[in-house]
Amino acid sequence: MRFDVVSLFPDMINNACDYSILKRAINDKLVEINTVNPRDYTLDKHRKVDDTPYGGGAGMLLACQPYMDALKSIKRYENSQTIIMSPQGKVFNQNMAKEFSEKDQIIIICGHYEGFDERIKILSKGMEISIGDFVMTGGELPALCIIDSVIRLKDGVLGDKESKEYDSHYDGLLEHPHYTKPRIYDGLEVPEILLNGNHEKIKNWRRLQQFIVTKQKRPDLFQKFLQGDISEYDLEILKQNNLF
Amino acid sequence: MRFDVVSLFPDMINNACDYSILKRAINDKLVEINTVNPRDYTLDKHRKVDDTPYGGGAGMLLACQPYMDALKSIKRYENSQTIIMSPQGKVFNQNMAKEFSEKDQIIIICGHYEGFDERIKILSKGMEISIGDFVMTGGELPALCIIDSVIRLKDGVLGDKESKEYDSHYDGLLEHPHYTKPRIYDGLEVPEILLNGNHEKIKNWRRLQQFIVTKQKRPDLFQKFLQGDISEYDLEILKQNNLF
Repeated sequence: MRFDVVSLFPDMINNACDYSILKRAINDKLVEINTVNPRDYTLDKHRKVDDTPYGGGAGMLLACQPYMDALKSIKRYENSQTIIMSPQGKVFNQNMAKEFSEKDQIIIICGHYEGFDERIKILSKGMEISIGDFVMTGGELPALCIIDSVIRLKDGVLGDKESKEYDSHYDGLLEHPHYTKPRIYDGLEVPEILLNGNHEKIKNWRRLQQFIVTKQKRPDLFQKFLQGDISEYDLEILKQNNLF
Repeated sequence: MRFDVVSLFPDMINNACDYSILKRAINDKLVEINTVNPRDYTLDKHRKVDDTPYGGGAGMLLACQPYMDALKSIKRYENSQTIIMSPQGKVFNQNMAKEFSEKDQIIIICGHYEGFDERIKILSKGMEISIGDFVMTGGELPALCIIDSVIRLKDGVLGDKESKEYDSHYDGLLEHPHYTKPRIYDGLEVPEILLNGNHEKIKNWRRLQQFIVTKQKRPDLFQKFLQGDISEYDLEILKQNNLF
């Protein structure tokens, strides 16, 4: 899988690729990250990539020519998706991460400063994506968040010891609480049930905790879960605990 | 304002601080970013910071001792907020960014791999925060997103030419479209109204575009806006265009 990131700060992308699971995935050739800097494509003699807005107003806008020419320089794969980081976009979530992980190429256009000339959005045909309802300086950090969440879902990226099945949001629920050594820390004890080695009971307790935690911390997700297809196993636990 | 970031990958935080507005804010001494690595606080002779989960299961969990000791090493300011990056947390948004920007210190605890021993969440008294409903490898990128969005709101961080008032989400609406030179690019023209220099008309057109874009792309935000306090100016534009 290949990511092509169009960004005025390519080092910000490249530096972040040098850690942890992303670094390993690149070393293992499971993922390739390429950056393209619109500044290398500007036809302006001062290498300018932005200009003042028509109609007045504060700030500078990223201009069409350098961005569109940068974009045209990228070799397109057949199974490719272009996305444009934008606070106006659809809010990214785990389902989108799954969809994107099935592509062979993701092209991500990062804005910066006050934003893009509207025509870049139209001409790039990129899907506008936001990572949340908050304002950021540029698209680089959100792009990295998306890259990270997408590559985790590719086969072979996570090792045997790492599990995506137990992650929060994997099946629409939050995770159950986890505990590791020591058994008592600062007066707080690990729940008894996790110590007794009864795997069936532990499995049921953890599933129940997922329901309880999700209901308490994210009632919106819990409602959505209840409205979906619920397995008989889940239904029994939910009913036994008056959660359904 | 000071950020103290507890992370196993401090360089990931420090590298990202070397760009754009964040770099300038640090150079101008408006913001200070400090990192603390739990690995420097572990009492384990192999410098381990994680261990296997009680009750079995895949993955390693971050243990209490190195994280709590790292946290205790941080000097607390009076007006301080501790947050813990967690997929189980409240979803970060612009209102939280505003709240956090009024603090003198934000302490951010970043997890990695399979997550924290539950007792770290309890003992740190950190507010659990997530940046969205998707799974990531660690808390570092989300922490950087939060730092970026918070510091933008501090007085003096954005220059005169940069405006936070016109950002998407500033008043619960998305931005209007922006255009810069040239007037025609690849057959697409800048809307006539932005060229005629009538500032009153341009202002009204832009406000209307904000309503239209928000209604189309984020009907949830538009509904919320309509349910809030609407100025007479906005109400007139909304009514004239059958949007209210």
